[in-house]
Amino acid sequence: MTLTVSTTPAAAREGAAPVAPVAPTTGALRPLGLDEVAITGGIWGRRQAVNGTATLDHIERWLEREGWLGNFDLAAAGTLPDGRRGREFSDSEVYKYLEAVAWEIGRLDASGAQDGGGTDASGARATELEARFRRIVDRVAAAQEPDGYLNTRFGRPGQGARWSDLEWGHELYCLGHLFQAAVARHRTRPDADDGLVGIARRAADLVCAVFGEGGDERVCGHAEVEVGLAELGRALGEPRYLEQARIFVDRHGRGSLADIEWGRSYFQDDVPVREADRLRGHAVRANYLSSGATDVAVETGDDELLRALDGQWEATQQRRTYVTGGQGSHHQDEAFGEDWELPADRAYSETCAAVASVMFGWRLLLAQADAAQADPRYADAIERALFNVVETSPDASGTAFYYANTLHQRVPGTEADPESVSPRAKSSLRAPWFEVSCCPPNTARTFASLAAYLATADASGVQLHQYAPSTVRTRLDDGQEVALEIATDYPAGGSVRVRVLTDASSPWTLALRVPAWAAGATLAVRPADGGDADERAVEPGYARVERAFAAGDEVELALPVAPRFTAPDPRVDAVRGSLAVERGPEVFALESVDLAGTTLETSDFADLRVDPATAPRDAAGSAGPAVPPRDADGAVVVTLVDARTGARADIPLVRYHEWAERGPSRMRVWIPLLTAEA
Amino acid sequence: MTLTVSTTPAAAREGAAPVAPVAPTTGALRPLGLDEVAITGGIWGRRQAVNGTATLDHIERWLEREGWLGNFDLAAAGTLPDGRRGREFSDSEVYKYLEAVAWEIGRLDASGAQDGGGTDASGARATELEARFRRIVDRVAAAQEPDGYLNTRFGRPGQGARWSDLEWGHELYCLGHLFQAAVARHRTRPDADDGLVGIARRAADLVCAVFGEGGDERVCGHAEVEVGLAELGRALGEPRYLEQARIFVDRHGRGSLADIEWGRSYFQDDVPVREADRLRGHAVRANYLSSGATDVAVETGDDELLRALDGQWEATQQRRTYVTGGQGSHHQDEAFGEDWELPADRAYSETCAAVASVMFGWRLLLAQADAAQADPRYADAIERALFNVVETSPDASGTAFYYANTLHQRVPGTEADPESVSPRAKSSLRAPWFEVSCCPPNTARTFASLAAYLATADASGVQLHQYAPSTVRTRLDDGQEVALEIATDYPAGGSVRVRVLTDASSPWTLALRVPAWAAGATLAVRPADGGDADERAVEPGYARVERAFAAGDEVELALPVAPRFTAPDPRVDAVRGSLAVERGPEVFALESVDLAGTTLETSDFADLRVDPATAPRDAAGSAGPAVPPRDADGAVVVTLVDARTGARADIPLVRYHEWAERGPSRMRVWIPLLTAEA
Repeated sequence: MTLTVSTTPAAAREGAAPVAPVAPTTGALRPLGLDEVAITGGIWGRRQAVNGTATLDHIERWLEREGWLGNFDLAAAGTLPDGRRGREFSDSEVYKYLEAVAWEIGRLDASGAQDGGGTDASGARATELEARFRRIVDRVAAAQEPDGYLNTRFGRPGQGARWSDLEWGHELYCLGHLFQAAVARHRTRPDADDGLVGIARRAADLVCAVFGEGGDERVCGHAEVEVGLAELGRALGEPRYLEQARIFVDRHGRGSLADIEWGRSYFQDDVPVREADRLRGHAVRANYLSSGATDVAVETGDDELLRALDGQWEATQQRRTYVTGGQGSHHQDEAFGEDWELPADRAYSETCAAVASVMFGWRLLLAQADAAQADPRYADAIERALFNVVETSPDASGTAFYYANTLHQRVPGTEADPESVSPRAKSSLRAPWFEVSCCPPNTARTFASLAAYLATADASGVQLHQYAPSTVRTRLDDGQEVALEIATDYPAGGSVRVRVLTDASSPWTLALRVPAWAAGATLAVRPADGGDADERAVEPGYARVERAFAAGDEVELALPVAPRFTAPDPRVDAVRGSLAVERGPEVFALESVDLAGTTLETSDFADLRVDPATAPRDAAGSAGPAVPPRDADGAVVVTLVDARTGARADIPLVRYHEWAERGPSRMRVWIPLLTAEA
Repeated sequence: MTLTVSTTPAAAREGAAPVAPVAPTTGALRPLGLDEVAITGGIWGRRQAVNGTATLDHIERWLEREGWLGNFDLAAAGTLPDGRRGREFSDSEVYKYLEAVAWEIGRLDASGAQDGGGTDASGARATELEARFRRIVDRVAAAQEPDGYLNTRFGRPGQGARWSDLEWGHELYCLGHLFQAAVARHRTRPDADDGLVGIARRAADLVCAVFGEGGDERVCGHAEVEVGLAELGRALGEPRYLEQARIFVDRHGRGSLADIEWGRSYFQDDVPVREADRLRGHAVRANYLSSGATDVAVETGDDELLRALDGQWEATQQRRTYVTGGQGSHHQDEAFGEDWELPADRAYSETCAAVASVMFGWRLLLAQADAAQADPRYADAIERALFNVVETSPDASGTAFYYANTLHQRVPGTEADPESVSPRAKSSLRAPWFEVSCCPPNTARTFASLAAYLATADASGVQLHQYAPSTVRTRLDDGQEVALEIATDYPAGGSVRVRVLTDASSPWTLALRVPAWAAGATLAVRPADGGDADERAVEPGYARVERAFAAGDEVELALPVAPRFTAPDPRVDAVRGSLAVERGPEVFALESVDLAGTTLETSDFADLRVDPATAPRDAAGSAGPAVPPRDADGAVVVTLVDARTGARADIPLVRYHEWAERGPSRMRVWIPLLTAEA
């Protein structure tokens, strides 16, 4: 099953790098950036709108309130460590927020450019965010030391010495996020000259000086600096940063960090990256490291490393990933379990691990040698994680979040206090902020840059990997401009209509991903000139149409999004004898609030069984739930039976990413099968 | 299902309190102590022999080596905190070791008394242990401060202030263990005057002064002082100590401790004891608190509290206890999960939680109002935990231990370094010592005093709760002496023969527990005078024979110990569609080492299924395993099938408490059923 990937260099890029988080200098597939792809509606459009307003405002308010921004002021004033607040990694939340704001400004700028000047509203918002961004950068800048060192927790009298606690101190981790924020700024407003890029450059130079060959030979306990350095090197054309990323990646697995109770696998310092066969240890660390290692492999042409990473990705997806795309089954160390150790009830499935898995999968997707042979598994996995974990974390308002994303809630939780900091994985309801609050800014930066994960281009044409109402405008390698408009109500509906807006100067290929679950999909091409439509069945993979497209041509992909049962791998003990229900890319869940008013209202939630003889079906025509969920389109109904009483009822399921939005409730993704029980 | 228990006061005790860890002043059932019950062979006899020699020597060597004993010398020398080693609770391991040595001396003394002077060997060992005990007590005494305060971690310049960290500091917890050690000393060698009782008394007086009514109103984050104070009060006839225990018990659940990430349920400070309906939070803390609360309820005649505790015990046994009797399913906080949250693969099942559950269950057993109505569930649960958790922790040599006792090992672990301190719950193999090393001395004190958990007496006669080759000599309330000799190879065999050694002056009743699994048991009475034997079927519960016994009379209980499948409660998601195999009180396990040489040798362990159509059976006549386990008697064979290949073989199972004694291996207690799999 292992995919062959290689690092065939692509033709040199035309013009500037894409306005995107990841811009390899080699590889056949070129990611299209925020200046080329815009999401115009649907679930992701709604999320981007909420994210760019309510969520960003929410995060900045809490960063101030908790003093994590104020720490930089204290550093500048020379009063630290007195008054410092937050955990050792709190600086990083500021940097992730800056990154999110930078992408959001870029998104608004692109939207304005598409509109031919922008709406007043989006322009005003961009102006406001720009001012806020600059104010925070000024505060960060004031805290940087003359030699480039930047951290509010280390290095001053009364604090730990610089680099004295690489296992837990997160200094390099924080800088990795600083670098990613600088990349976002450099790619979205390269001429803004607000100083963030300079801050990052000075810090990166220090890192290279301290940790370069012949220097300190350790790594950071929380990977992130690798991926940050690699992209900063790409963005600034600075090979030293990429080389430093390579050094860090190579150093992992050589025991440079102290052993800890959970073992060195916790920070991937147990086995060298190229020798490992699984992701293991802390799930966020593992995916960040893998992302940085993929960048290093691609930029250095290290095919052995790339193949090793691809094998790890595959094994991890097959054996260590929840049906939701979530990763990490241990609460104790936020870590992967062994193969098949995927308990639903103690699923940790940290939001940030899903963000990180999207980063890793996207880099592998881009590393593929040949679009004609492109493997859909990466985009399938990215879609799964986006819909069922990343989108599960924030609620509709964008101001409360899951840190961990359990697949089974036995006891209804309690409402989080909207004015209090919550423990990270305690409640069954989303909380506004956490003592460890990495997920709000991590989802925010992902949503703000989401358009950059939808499409790629190569010498032959354009590839669409994710479907949303959107527009694509790019220039192919042969110089011709291509513009597309995608209309779809996916994933509620399965129709994806791509309207070509440009006349081709020569034939090019449009490739559309057909997800693995979409057996029976069809593809229709409808020429603008009224010629005969061509319709054909397409297999999971990438469906391709090569054509000298004319403006007005339409390509329609019809994906069968009927509800379906999903059986677990029989080696996953925790959910043996159970079924999940999916519909398109969305996982559904049974939520106790939906039992109200049915004959199962008084049943013990643990006694409910699904009747496998009755397939899950679209809810259209069924009685709706007592409390309607947010999104009524594409709702699903299953027939449940109380194993104790024999009572039976049709019960609507809720989209997993919308669960716990209607008050405290019980929930389960995997529903036990009705069988003869003792 | 809730048992009715009450605190009917019994007749005043004749003579001294039993030589036993628990000696209620009320209650119908009087525990028989080490001076009345001796284990003479079998599995527990072997364990006691190893425990009293190799294990005690091992523990003392590690206490010295790790500096946990040396901390007391540093305290006496006034050099603390410099050089202090070990965690905040390391003092307690010294006290538990002292308790274990005291019980072992008592056991050897009783054995000597039975032999009419004792063997040279046991007498010499007792003398050696006595000298070691006194040397350690002297070192502890030197560290006690004039006002009675005793702790090597707090109270000195450079250390935290006394009682400044009740959430995590374990000061009162350590004293609780000191009190239990003093109780053991007081009851085994009351005239020895080595000072431990005085040390405990001074410390207890300080606790009462500081934490009494009107004083500091908090509790200790780790319950234990309650049960220690209660028993010290009983032993010394000091009502103030019992009252202080009552105060602490009543204070729990009122939020006197800080909230923490895992919630106040972690230290049972969420709900008052009498209002709770489940054990919850940290499993050791919960059981220690419940034990102390039971003591308080019994001594104060608080029937409401006792009923609440009994309900909690019942619900916890039914819904939050593994088939092994283990408790606690969370690694992160060593805590109970929700009802039915019992994953096999992440079972924490801490050894100390099982020790603590035996303490709690035994106290409820003793609290029963009427032997004629005695409920066997307490002794059933105690037996389950003893055989399948407490005996699982140490290996045959008694020098390596499990801290946690998983029910499913997917990946063979690595051998623990015999000269290194291990993380507590990492390896699949037992380790000699842990950074948190509570289990070695906790099992040691339990095994040394195990004879005190076998039998009780009341006005009507003698009750046997646990079966081992043993002798019982006691005086009934009516003054007549009764002596019994129990011969059995239980649990390998199901025959328990009780030979009466004394002529009765009036009829009395012998009660024998029939475990819940023992449907089809029979009881035979064979008079010494050659009269007709009386044989009858007996139901699970207590089988009773009332008779004017004559010396030579024999009562034989025949328990059907044929192997059996055990199905899980259908509400336990983690092991749905699986079966366990039990035989008598012992749980068996499939261990990968036993696949060697069979057609399943190369199977993926995750693919193995048990064929429910083929019952588990005694291994007699079958080909033995490639590497024989320690105890070949009563081995069990099941028919397994490889779900992938269809290969089939008869595979011997290993007693769960003997697993991982033949090198690293995979293991599972719950074996998935062979079913049609996709």
